[in-house]
This record gives sequence, structure tokens and C-alpha cells, in this order.
Amino acid sequence: MTDTFSRVTVLGTGLIGTSVALAVRHRGVEVLLADSDTAALWQSVERGAGSVLLTDAHADLVVIATPPSAVAGVLLHAQRRGLGEVYTDVASIKAGVIQAATDLGCDLTSYVPGHPLAGGESSGPTAARADLFVKRPWVLCPTTATRSEAVNRAAEFAGLIGATVHVIDADTHDRAMALVSHAPHVLSSAMAARLADTDSMTLALVGNGLRDVIRIAAGNTQMWTDILTLNAQPVAHVLDAVAYDLKEAADSLRSVASGHDEAASTLTKLLADGNAGQSRALAIPGETNVNVTSEF
Amino acid sequence: MTDTFSRVTVLGTGLIGTSVALAVRHRGVEVLLADSDTAALWQSVERGAGSVLLTDAHADLVVIATPPSAVAGVLLHAQRRGLGEVYTDVASIKAGVIQAATDLGCDLTSYVPGHPLAGGESSGPTAARADLFVKRPWVLCPTTATRSEAVNRAAEFAGLIGATVHVIDADTHDRAMALVSHAPHVLSSAMAARLADTDSMTLALVGNGLRDVIRIAAGNTQMWTDILTLNAQPVAHVLDAVAYDLKEAADSLRSVASGHDEAASTLTKLLADGNAGQSRALAIPGETNVNVTSEF
Repeated sequence: MTDTFSRVTVLGTGLIGTSVALAVRHRGVEVLLADSDTAALWQSVERGAGSVLLTDAHADLVVIATPPSAVAGVLLHAQRRGLGEVYTDVASIKAGVIQAATDLGCDLTSYVPGHPLAGGESSGPTAARADLFVKRPWVLCPTTATRSEAVNRAAEFAGLIGATVHVIDADTHDRAMALVSHAPHVLSSAMAARLADTDSMTLALVGNGLRDVIRIAAGNTQMWTDILTLNAQPVAHVLDAVAYDLKEAADSLRSVASGHDEAASTLTKLLADGNAGQSRALAIPGETNVNVTSEF
Repeated sequence: MTDTFSRVTVLGTGLIGTSVALAVRHRGVEVLLADSDTAALWQSVERGAGSVLLTDAHADLVVIATPPSAVAGVLLHAQRRGLGEVYTDVASIKAGVIQAATDLGCDLTSYVPGHPLAGGESSGPTAARADLFVKRPWVLCPTTATRSEAVNRAAEFAGLIGATVHVIDADTHDRAMALVSHAPHVLSSAMAARLADTDSMTLALVGNGLRDVIRIAAGNTQMWTDILTLNAQPVAHVLDAVAYDLKEAADSLRSVASGHDEAASTLTKLLADGNAGQSRALAIPGETNVNVTSEF
């Protein structure tokens, strides 16, 4: 048992929830688990992530690790049952979740909206790892109503399981995620979608370059529809900009094909900007294993 | 020395040219090398890829491994010098190169347009490997004027160094490459370009999903402008389709944001098509290490 947390309750025992539970169990904290999917709950218990929440036991912290659209409802219910001192969640969109929690009448003073940037290619409790959050960014987006003691507790918790805490406002977080995770997912899907009906000769020519571009297109479609629609405006903004650049690239190519060689410079500019952005994004030290294609 | 090739000349000693030379040298064939970049030529010779072409020695096969836009001019010059019995090239676009060769008055009967689908993240002779083409597709796109004996020789050569030969027409090849290599490169660049001016807070949230999507955006901009403009129409066609889908996804997101929940189905459909295309493209056996982000 740590000095500061004696009991943590995790609601939702998928990849993230079970990983949080395993990480905190490894530090001797009592963990209580719940999930509407009893198979997932059982797998999580079998992994040694904690015990099933059977009563309204009061915890120092309640981590809501459900899909984004379920967070507000689960939060309200948990608060009514008095399950925790402080509440946090792990959804990859924040403004929409906060709005839903506000609309439902949740207590915002004890709720610290959160987002650990970790995950993997697999999902579910069997893919969970106690070290999933080590050196990963864990974003907290407190509302103006959130008590600072609650923020400190959530930050202490994220630090306890090895994550690096970043406190930013929800809108900034959501714009950043639209750019670095949500829009790239749509791009990857749109490219992969062009291959759905392709002949086998063409498929025989697929190489690692394309494989990399379309790797994240394998995600759960319902969960991603949930994420994207909850972050609709920021994602649409990025998609518009990329669609514009692709249309402009196509127009430049047609101009070159009809003899206007100078149109190639538009294309070279886009490729050069791509070089610059790629090296900026890949130059960030210490985050090489972060995977933002997280479950939520 | 093999039974069938006693001398091969390689014009252009970058990654592909030097790898071809190393592969054939390992089978005891004499290899002559030339490159306008004397540093690259010297590195290739130092790697043991062959000797410098000093006279107009006649070879069984001349492999032109220059950037795409240089192929036709190099072919004409080589044919005038009588350097080979049969000529082939390695450019990733074929119709444009064949048109240029035709326009320049090259002898098409001895020219077998080719494209080995191999490469790597690095370029230049120092990155060359003798096994680069083993079990990789090597496409041949003979013109109607190409002699069948020449096609057989080129196929024999590709087989000799371990590649799997596919004979298809140039337009089919170019449409396939637009889909599986050229358009994905532009997509990757367009996504990476959005990160060129991004703040460091946002960059701290970059994870492996985005890294995969933008990996190939690191390519040489001049070489890629060359490739894309030589395959302008097929690439523009794919980019238009993807831009349309992204614009439609953005519009759907805005509709959902203004209360039209049914618009989410457009998005779910695109994600589902992406799932299907991704699993089709990644299910092809025996090509797992093919990298179509080749030098040319």
C-alpha cells in the first residue's frame, strides 16, 4: 500500500482500465473492478487486476475507463452511489465528455477529466500491461469547477503508475488530438478504403510504405465513430485542410500533365512541408513508444 | 559465371543499381558500372559491385537505374554506344518513361521496361544489399515493339537475382502504383505537412499511430516530384477520390455536430471500408518485407 492511495475503483476493464488496475495493484493498492461486459470483468480479475466491486465501497479515486460516450452516465451513477473521493476518466476527447457530464448534472468539483496516451494494436483485458503508462503522457483537463485538490490527486495517481502529467485545457487537448490522432485515423481509413475492391494483381504490389500508412485503419469502427463524432469540429477542420491539399496536388498533377511544368512546384512544396512535419514529429525524444491509437 | 549472363552493365549506382550489381556479382557475372555522380560510383565500386565502365564494352544486359526522368536519355545514349544486347530500367512509372523513350527515338525492340518493387528507408550505394530483390515482385512492361527474346532475357535476369517476375502492361502497372505507392506518399506528406508549424505541446502527444502514417513522408522531394508528375493522371485520380472521401467525412462530422446523428453512418461506412481494405492489403502472403517506397 502506498502512503496516499489505499483503494482505487476502475469502472470499465478493457485494455486501459485493466492496465491501470494492474499498474496500481503492483504498488499494493486495493483495486475494485466493474464492467457491464461480465466476460471482460472476469478476464480482468483472472489477470490479477483486482476484485469485483460488490458494494458501494468508497475509494480514494474512481477511474472511468469506458468508451467516451458512456463516461458521463457512468460518472453520474458512480457519484450518486458515492463510490469515490475523486473521479477521472481516460477518454481521448475531453470537451464533449465534459459537456455531457455538465448536462447530466454531474458534480464537476470532484471530476478531473483525463487522457492517458497509451494503448496498443490489441484491445481488451488480455492485452493489458502494468507498464503501459510508464513514461507516457497523461493529460489532465480540469474544468473551472474542478477542485485543485482533486487535480493534485489525479496527477499524483498518474505519476504513481509512471506516466508524465500534462495539464492543459480541454479545447487545446481536443484540437491536438484531432491533429495527431483522430484525423490521421480517418486518413489512414480513407486510403485503406480504396483497396477494399482492388484486384489481386494490384495487391501483390503492396509494400511496407502503404502498410505503414494504413496500419491504424484496423481500429474498431463503432468506437472510432464515437471518438470522431465527439470531437467533430476539430477533426473536420484538419480533414478539410488535408482534403484541400490533396485536391490541390491532384490539380497540380493535371496541370503538369497538360504542359504547365511550373505547377510541379506546388507539389514539391507539399512534399517539403511533409519532410519538415515528419522530422519534427519524429524528433520528440522519450516518446518513441507512445501509441495514441489507444482503446478510447 | 552463370550459363546465360557473362557481362551486365549497370548505369546509375544508387541503392537499386548497386543492389542489382551486388546480386549479380555474387553469381559470378562481370559487372560494369557508371554514374554521373562520381562519389556514388566510387562507393559502389568499393562495395565490390563491379568495375568502372571505361570503354563501350558490350554487355548481355544493360540495367538503367537512374531517376525516372533520366531513363530515356540514358537509354538513347547507351543504345547509340552499343552497350548492350538487351536494355531494362527500374523506374516506378512505366508509361511516361516509354513515351519519352519513343519520343527520343530509342530502339524499343531491345528495351524491356522494368520495375523491381524493392527498396528501403535509406538510399544510395552504402544502403545496397545483394538480397534486396529476393522474393520481391519485379514487374516487366514490354511494349508492342519489344522483342519477346528481350523480354525473356530480362525475366531470366530478374529470376537469377531471386525476384518474382510479373508481366503486365504499362498502364495497368502505373494505375496500380498510383494506388499502392504514389498516392499514399502524397497522403502521408499532406498529413505530415500539418505538423510543420505545430507547437511543442501538441508534438509531445504524437504517438506510434501517427508516426506510421507519416513515415514515408521523409522521401526525397525532387525524386518524388519526378515520380508523381510522370504518373500524373493515375495519381490525380486516386487523390481526387481520397480528397472527396475526406471532405465527405468532414461534412458528416459537422452534420452530427449540428444534431444530425444519422450522418455518423457515412463515417462508419468509411471506417468499415478501411477495415476491409486494410485486411485485404495486409493478408497477401510472401510479400511481408516488400517496400514499395523504393528509390525510384
